[in-house]
Amino acid sequence: MPRLSLKGLQMPESPIRKLVPYATAAKARGVKVYHLNIGQPDIETPEVALNAVKNLDRKVIEYSNSEGYASYRAGLAKYYKSVGVDVEDSDIMVTTGGSEALIFGFMTCLDPGDEIIIPEPFYANYNGFATMAGLNVKPITAKLEDGFSLPPISEFERRITENTRAILICNPGNPTGTLYGKESLEALAKLVKKYDLFLFTDEVYREFCYDSAIPFSCMNLQGIENNVVMIDSVSKRYSMCGARVGALVSRNKELMTNALKFAQARLSPPTLGQIAGEAALNTPPEYFERVKEEYVQRRNTLVDGLNAIEGVTCPKPAGAFYAMAELPVKSGDDFCQWMLEEFNYEGETVMMAPGSGFYSTRAFGEKQVRIAYVLKEEDLMRSIKIIEEGLKAYPGRIS
Amino acid sequence: MPRLSLKGLQMPESPIRKLVPYATAAKARGVKVYHLNIGQPDIETPEVALNAVKNLDRKVIEYSNSEGYASYRAGLAKYYKSVGVDVEDSDIMVTTGGSEALIFGFMTCLDPGDEIIIPEPFYANYNGFATMAGLNVKPITAKLEDGFSLPPISEFERRITENTRAILICNPGNPTGTLYGKESLEALAKLVKKYDLFLFTDEVYREFCYDSAIPFSCMNLQGIENNVVMIDSVSKRYSMCGARVGALVSRNKELMTNALKFAQARLSPPTLGQIAGEAALNTPPEYFERVKEEYVQRRNTLVDGLNAIEGVTCPKPAGAFYAMAELPVKSGDDFCQWMLEEFNYEGETVMMAPGSGFYSTRAFGEKQVRIAYVLKEEDLMRSIKIIEEGLKAYPGRIS
Repeated sequence: MPRLSLKGLQMPESPIRKLVPYATAAKARGVKVYHLNIGQPDIETPEVALNAVKNLDRKVIEYSNSEGYASYRAGLAKYYKSVGVDVEDSDIMVTTGGSEALIFGFMTCLDPGDEIIIPEPFYANYNGFATMAGLNVKPITAKLEDGFSLPPISEFERRITENTRAILICNPGNPTGTLYGKESLEALAKLVKKYDLFLFTDEVYREFCYDSAIPFSCMNLQGIENNVVMIDSVSKRYSMCGARVGALVSRNKELMTNALKFAQARLSPPTLGQIAGEAALNTPPEYFERVKEEYVQRRNTLVDGLNAIEGVTCPKPAGAFYAMAELPVKSGDDFCQWMLEEFNYEGETVMMAPGSGFYSTRAFGEKQVRIAYVLKEEDLMRSIKIIEEGLKAYPGRIS
Repeated sequence: MPRLSLKGLQMPESPIRKLVPYATAAKARGVKVYHLNIGQPDIETPEVALNAVKNLDRKVIEYSNSEGYASYRAGLAKYYKSVGVDVEDSDIMVTTGGSEALIFGFMTCLDPGDEIIIPEPFYANYNGFATMAGLNVKPITAKLEDGFSLPPISEFERRITENTRAILICNPGNPTGTLYGKESLEALAKLVKKYDLFLFTDEVYREFCYDSAIPFSCMNLQGIENNVVMIDSVSKRYSMCGARVGALVSRNKELMTNALKFAQARLSPPTLGQIAGEAALNTPPEYFERVKEEYVQRRNTLVDGLNAIEGVTCPKPAGAFYAMAELPVKSGDDFCQWMLEEFNYEGETVMMAPGSGFYSTRAFGEKQVRIAYVLKEEDLMRSIKIIEEGLKAYPGRIS
């Protein structure tokens, strides 16, 4: 018996990463590549955060508490109150990014074999975390023509089996940019209560809501206080993805006690990232106003520009910094690869994330691509031009 | 059906953490507590590492590559070569501490239900990581009277079933401080080859070998190059536990390719920690000489001091900065708690880690405690005195 064959968990490949070799090859050929494929904003990290790191005044980079620095958790509680979420320090555990919060949340609440319902398209790495926790993902397809709004509750209910134990949503959404309203969420809460499910709510894009939209946190849904688990992160809020600092937030005391055991096994979230994160709590409001203004402009430029291309449909997102667009192509996968492998416009091309990777239901999303508007407007305008020219030249174009 | 009952994985409680409330209460009563319970050294982080953080010259704390910064991996390859381990950049993946390296290693190589053999006493969090990966830990007891040397190969072989897929060792060892010699490891390699197992080798204490002992890395075992997975971390080497930077190292290309998918799901190891880690590669050799000298003195003070107490036996460790001691008590758990809850000597007491938590076989280790010699000599001497007085006063004393 050959034991050394790798068994292990079959992790899904990241839909974003699989194009990386083609982008690398394009660059090697001297082609300039605009990266609209990942959520790494070019926005500067707040100065208060950078300065806190630069002014490091300790001699030993020690472990923090497993649940994060007490002062940071107190600061986070104050921050959450300021955005209308009334939680105590003890409801908050600092994690190594939102990723770890989700892994700990899954492993704390659910058993291998349990089912979790997620509206698709969804953040592709949810698949990976579900795999790590042994969960079965049951998708519900949200439709581009509905602006990717929350699917009808009846669709959720139809998917509930005796193994269903949780629902996961992302609000505002990656990859859709859709913001779920209070009414939709209250309807979802009723279902959550009826079947006594866990509701995981990824709210890392909270600060990125546009056109006066105010996000409604699932933490404020009445009657399901013990069911809701919020995932948070400093990555997007303060443009410090590399800090690897997030949070698991829940009012369910038993849940937090059990989650702490996972945190203790890995000892401590990153100390330096926490120093930056704690300082970032003092980011002046002007920072967010400026950033939001910038993103609104970018979004408008992108969405208007894309919709002006023949055959392209792109709903206007109300939040986050992604848009899902439907292109006049049979396969977004093929088109995105072709753009890197075969095409350039005046020596430049664009890297996008094929939409299919954000769907579990393979029939959907094939014509879609996710575009992160994380580049400055000038580059976005150039990217739109390149996409337009690419679509003209692409042999697989339909319409 | 009450779905909201927490199921989730049953994570073992950390043997170190469960005494924390008693230590907190002792401090609240005004008792000074010497912390010999955790591996958080008081040694200063190398200045080059601290300075790199302070001189941060970027405006955005971005993600790094999922496998870590290319320059850091190149630097690590050079470092490994300098300690006699000839690996390429591509054999190295930067992880969020040694903890994540172990989780990724387990999940990449093994399936839920697989068995892993670990000599005990072992680092208690191995249990937690095994639980997360769904593995069954099969312990082999190493004996205090043998200085916790590697158990006979026949004992390993006796435990191999059709589900056995891996062996995990820690060398130099936590909690024992034992250094396995080349001959023992070569014997183990034969067994690994015979049954084609994975050999996980946690070598994070490599720099802490005393009395001219030179550690032999399992990466240098012949004929099992594809079986060996090394776990590493900057935490202890540079006294920067809070950086949360480690590494998964293997020459098995397929393994590294699969492990990368786990890394990609969580996007990036900590950027700031990597900056510190990369700079730390330039730590001058004098730093390690000074640190080693300090630890040798501490070890000698501790071990001689403990063995001088009636009824106490403590083998002299050759590496790391822990010692396992057997005390004249029925229950180390009870004694450690009593020291915090009931006892003080001139207003001071000592926190130790009960030995039982490092054993899976409950019958063993009950009389043992783990002492980390991470405090300065003066405090260590004071701690020994307090332990001596504690043992005199302890009602549960035997012998």
